Amino acid sequence: MNAEIIAVGSELLLGQIANTNAQFISEHLAALGIDVYFHTVCGDNEGRMIDVIKNAEKRADLLIFTGGLGPTKDDLTKETVAHVLGRNLVTDQEAMESILEYFKVTGREMTENNKKQALVVEGSHVLPNHHGMAPGMIVDTGRHLYLLMPGVPSEMKPMFLDFARLYSASRNEEHIQSRVLRFFGIGESQLETQIIDLIDAQSNPTIAPLAKESEVTLRLTAKHEQLDQAEAMLDAIEAKIDARVGQYLYGYNEESLPEIVFELLREQKKTIAFAESLTGGMAADWMAAFPGASSILNGGIVCYTNQVKHQVLAVPQEVLKTDGAVSASCAKHLAASVRKLCGSDFGVSFTGVAGPDKSEGKDVGTVYIGFSDSNGSESYRFQFNGSRQKIRIQSTKTGYDIVRRHLRNLPIIGC
Amino acid sequence: MNAEIIAVGSELLLGQIANTNAQFISEHLAALGIDVYFHTVCGDNEGRMIDVIKNAEKRADLLIFTGGLGPTKDDLTKETVAHVLGRNLVTDQEAMESILEYFKVTGREMTENNKKQALVVEGSHVLPNHHGMAPGMIVDTGRHLYLLMPGVPSEMKPMFLDFARLYSASRNEEHIQSRVLRFFGIGESQLETQIIDLIDAQSNPTIAPLAKESEVTLRLTAKHEQLDQAEAMLDAIEAKIDARVGQYLYGYNEESLPEIVFELLREQKKTIAFAESLTGGMAADWMAAFPGASSILNGGIVCYTNQVKHQVLAVPQEVLKTDGAVSASCAKHLAASVRKLCGSDFGVSFTGVAGPDKSEGKDVGTVYIGFSDSNGSESYRFQFNGSRQKIRIQSTKTGYDIVRRHLRNLPIIGC
Repeated sequence: MNAEIIAVGSELLLGQIANTNAQFISEHLAALGIDVYFHTVCGDNEGRMIDVIKNAEKRADLLIFTGGLGPTKDDLTKETVAHVLGRNLVTDQEAMESILEYFKVTGREMTENNKKQALVVEGSHVLPNHHGMAPGMIVDTGRHLYLLMPGVPSEMKPMFLDFARLYSASRNEEHIQSRVLRFFGIGESQLETQIIDLIDAQSNPTIAPLAKESEVTLRLTAKHEQLDQAEAMLDAIEAKIDARVGQYLYGYNEESLPEIVFELLREQKKTIAFAESLTGGMAADWMAAFPGASSILNGGIVCYTNQVKHQVLAVPQEVLKTDGAVSASCAKHLAASVRKLCGSDFGVSFTGVAGPDKSEGKDVGTVYIGFSDSNGSESYRFQFNGSRQKIRIQSTKTGYDIVRRHLRNLPIIGC
Repeated sequence: MNAEIIAVGSELLLGQIANTNAQFISEHLAALGIDVYFHTVCGDNEGRMIDVIKNAEKRADLLIFTGGLGPTKDDLTKETVAHVLGRNLVTDQEAMESILEYFKVTGREMTENNKKQALVVEGSHVLPNHHGMAPGMIVDTGRHLYLLMPGVPSEMKPMFLDFARLYSASRNEEHIQSRVLRFFGIGESQLETQIIDLIDAQSNPTIAPLAKESEVTLRLTAKHEQLDQAEAMLDAIEAKIDARVGQYLYGYNEESLPEIVFELLREQKKTIAFAESLTGGMAADWMAAFPGASSILNGGIVCYTNQVKHQVLAVPQEVLKTDGAVSASCAKHLAASVRKLCGSDFGVSFTGVAGPDKSEGKDVGTVYIGFSDSNGSESYRFQFNGSRQKIRIQSTKTGYDIVRRHLRNLPIIGC
């Protein structure tokens, strides 16, 4: 099975948005074992869309459309697919009812063109839209499979996952199950070296590493006639990987490191505060992004100048003069003071050289992260590289990982 | 003239990255007056790439390729274009010298396949790569124009802008000049209403509005035989727009609001500090992202709990009890205290309800922003809507805009 992803919409051709839908769908098709050979973007133009469909039919089994299902006369996708297939459009009662319901609930007035959204290609399997009005549809002609979905990502994504489940279920010869393991604090080549025998021996499950934004992921994919057996195969290979590099494994699939740390703090009923020099508020901001942050994040101090480090966070002038602001002793003082000042269980501090220039004679990328709790304060040294922003982000992630390791009783190692 | 943008690379088809190159190029082609009817993505496969090229030749005048110019045997773009055109690949001496120079400077060892990067399609105009090794090229066959560029965005973007300049210069019948005006604090429909007569009368220059991320932009595009005349036409229409809505116009083209405020503070030699409740460090973080931030950002306090508001930022218990943390009086106290504590010229504070739930009986989206300088403290009320993160971002931008208006002696208006 191979697929072509066809996005319809002039806003893509005008460069107003990027085709992130194609990325999302491609990533999930790879996990389903479906090859993608082409992405195509075309505008809201019937003639050009017909050419695109006929061309795609020559080179793909599965044609996936995003966009062009809306109520206006510019929206042509289902009309054009119906035309190419020689089928009619018919009203889907369930879709019509959910549109009527929407207008009833919101009290808005329904215009005639909204009824157009309940039309579907005759003989198609309708996919309900749980986040908008336009339903999706699957048309199976025997030779080709056509999947039509809306272009709004928040409507398309859950609908595509519904399709993926239906697709997996329909292929009763085998289930393809996929699981992404997320690692922090270990490089891609270092991780590969640790599990190279497992990677070399892979066939089912497969193990696919990918490095992105200072993190490494492993996508495990297992195939089996029975779903629970496929899951068991994933569990078995994960256990082997976990035994070797488990301390770096922080989460699964779409989970983020801040999300995991936030949940750990919530479970263990701990509060936190940050003293941020080079990260300048980033660590606190990431936590404040989560609903319910107020029960976990007490506060923080952005201590960009030595004056703030000394006057607000009580770092002794002696330390700033002798060791400098970028030092282990400064990091320890900062973490201890911010913890005390904000009355939190943990205090975490960041001080370092983000660049582009050296500071205090210390190289760009030199970073100290302090951690303080009721047992005292510790500091960890790191040497990062890359742009100013990359160093700031990697520092913030490393601070979060230190908290994660503390909460999971894992060793913390600087360089 | 119409164009098709062809991205080559399996990482796109696997969903590892989104095709942001196509967005960038499309946006700039629109400004050049070149229509884009199709985007295509294909993998590193010669047969499929040949089909894509032949198909594109039928429907486009300008074929723009990104990716597949690297040193490995997977990189096939120029080989395949040369094959389709029946041309040879020849070594470009300048490109070869710059590759040799690169290896000399970095001290790395050059492998044989790096020489492949100096090969170009015979008879092409070579575009130097100022940010990497693989040169770009333009092939003009009379019937079609082929533009080949690397896939790495930091290498592609400046090269594409070089092409755009060459293209504009070659069309000696007329120059197409474009300028984007960036607005904050005014909605798209409100802006349109203010200048509707200018929009209705537009032909040359054209005026194209676009709303994105709580901001509105107007793209002005003028055509004239003489470059300076095209510029003068842009100046004239901008002056008319400026006379009506100039107070909302913060910058041009790719400039961001934080960047503009950072530059204004630097020019006027002013320092700043932030007291952040709902924004939780975001305002300080945006400023810390700029090199040289340490001479402008003194520091900040993330005051998520009332305890931190009271103990660190001296907000009276009376205010927290009577008016609440989300109040004009609290915002004023926060701004004044953080200014004093961090010893800065300005203090800016943020307190509000980010959601998803109401707080202190106040609606989600209720936000107070405080501003303090040597003349005293003021507070401004706003009512935003959308998700938690959208409200936090809009609050931070609004705080920056208040600083901009202060530094430019413009009125500041809350709701």
